[in-house]
Amino acid sequence: MENNRITGLLGIKYPLVQGGMVWCSGWRLASAVSNCGGLGLLGAGSMHPDTLREHIRKTKAATSGPFGVNVPLMYPEIEEVMRIVVEEEVPVMFTSAGSPKKWTPYLKDHGIKVVQVVASSLLARKSEDAGVDAVVAEGFEAGGHNGREETTTMALIPTVRDAVSIPVIAAGGIADIRGYRAAFALGADGVQMGTRFALCRESSASEEFKAYCRGLAEGGSRLLLKKMVPTRLVDNEFSAKIAEMEAAGAGKAELEAFVAKGRAKLGMFEGNLQEGMLEIGQIASIVKEEESVADIFASLGLA
Amino acid sequence: MENNRITGLLGIKYPLVQGGMVWCSGWRLASAVSNCGGLGLLGAGSMHPDTLREHIRKTKAATSGPFGVNVPLMYPEIEEVMRIVVEEEVPVMFTSAGSPKKWTPYLKDHGIKVVQVVASSLLARKSEDAGVDAVVAEGFEAGGHNGREETTTMALIPTVRDAVSIPVIAAGGIADIRGYRAAFALGADGVQMGTRFALCRESSASEEFKAYCRGLAEGGSRLLLKKMVPTRLVDNEFSAKIAEMEAAGAGKAELEAFVAKGRAKLGMFEGNLQEGMLEIGQIASIVKEEESVADIFASLGLA
Repeated sequence: MENNRITGLLGIKYPLVQGGMVWCSGWRLASAVSNCGGLGLLGAGSMHPDTLREHIRKTKAATSGPFGVNVPLMYPEIEEVMRIVVEEEVPVMFTSAGSPKKWTPYLKDHGIKVVQVVASSLLARKSEDAGVDAVVAEGFEAGGHNGREETTTMALIPTVRDAVSIPVIAAGGIADIRGYRAAFALGADGVQMGTRFALCRESSASEEFKAYCRGLAEGGSRLLLKKMVPTRLVDNEFSAKIAEMEAAGAGKAELEAFVAKGRAKLGMFEGNLQEGMLEIGQIASIVKEEESVADIFASLGLA
Repeated sequence: MENNRITGLLGIKYPLVQGGMVWCSGWRLASAVSNCGGLGLLGAGSMHPDTLREHIRKTKAATSGPFGVNVPLMYPEIEEVMRIVVEEEVPVMFTSAGSPKKWTPYLKDHGIKVVQVVASSLLARKSEDAGVDAVVAEGFEAGGHNGREETTTMALIPTVRDAVSIPVIAAGGIADIRGYRAAFALGADGVQMGTRFALCRESSASEEFKAYCRGLAEGGSRLLLKKMVPTRLVDNEFSAKIAEMEAAGAGKAELEAFVAKGRAKLGMFEGNLQEGMLEIGQIASIVKEEESVADIFASLGLA
């Protein structure tokens, strides 16, 4: 799979992207992935703008390879983030959770490649129309924020492939060489892996969180918060309370009041496994070892 | 993929099984699939025992190839079904929605191959322990009855593959050559396709239902009835009412009272698209043509 449309577009050796995940994807993870020939991403969603700038600079110091930043477009200080990535000459931006129309022209004008994360062929087409260079098509099994359609990777990739002509990166449910190969069989040009990288040594998540998620039972995560932004949460006391409220018919306002700010940091970064919010993909069930980024690339035959 | 563990086990030319689906899988569909070199299945779930016997006899008259019967183990007259399949010398039984312990020894004693449908590696292991010959591992994206874990095909197949040593047939989200190849990449030994066969010419479903489901929008079906048996339903007035009741916190008894018997027949067989219950998989979004079973095999390169 070397020398395909994604490696050419992003200037990388292997068509493998590491998902930009809140509380997991700092400079250590992103630079390690880029040094192995993939595309490392910083997860701006959990960083203050100043922290993001610091991580960008540390990434540049730690790798000479291309890297990128993932930012959810609903990020409150989005203007600040966009100013920083231009100033710091970040080569690639992954944008998610919002319309690609507003920022794509700005980023492209500054020579930045733009990849939009989508969960439907409708948004994939809109993204192509907005001028993005590629899309990540992410299925229901992925961790964290998720599409309302609940379309799985198996159903989504062929549909998106048929809907657009730009390159498609498959995400959701991919954590070993079997999933990696299946993604290309489905029509993808590249793969984005989140879960396996979130649980590896260079991830900035707490060791408690990583140990809790490795080998997670099937059904050990649930898509909840559908009245807010659908989000895949790992089972714990916090998610059980949300599920209970939802089963009893709780509305959006009631849920928002319960899901106070800081819960994701508390769980994923500080390791409070019961009171915090934990996000991981279904495929955590096959991730069992404590390993490095280099181990992951080697296990995929990318070395 | 000819001459692998599934073709050897089932005595078929290609490792492709047609799902045994209520109101779709009668003798016309099953015999056409078996005549093309796959394994056709009768869907006993929507047949009275006498009707099942009639369909078995018509299938035997229409094909000399192996075929099978799928029966949900919660079928009310299950003893009668088991007696009939032994009397009629059905070569293969697919059992679903229940424990494989009770009937597997009986069927095996009568020389019948047994394949259990599972949605988790836990049930896959239990099925192997109970002596079944193979499992169908069916993901969240599949139509109709579904697992509580909500594990997708992409995440389920590698997990089940690692959990058992008997052959694994992948199901859920597979409708073209891309999904077919991806299933083998994920570690499956065979493929079960439901949706695409449900919508083809030989399916006994109503033409109104087939036309409604072809090219279904992404997000056009939902996993509902989680307080009863989780079931993927196509969006219509009937499913909208269920979703509304569930969002308002309706309990099991209230839902059961609303989902009266006969709704699936009304929708899928009689073509009442708004008041009936419609079941199809997510991958209906890529099934667009009116076609025959032979067309399907040819498009998969199985001819």
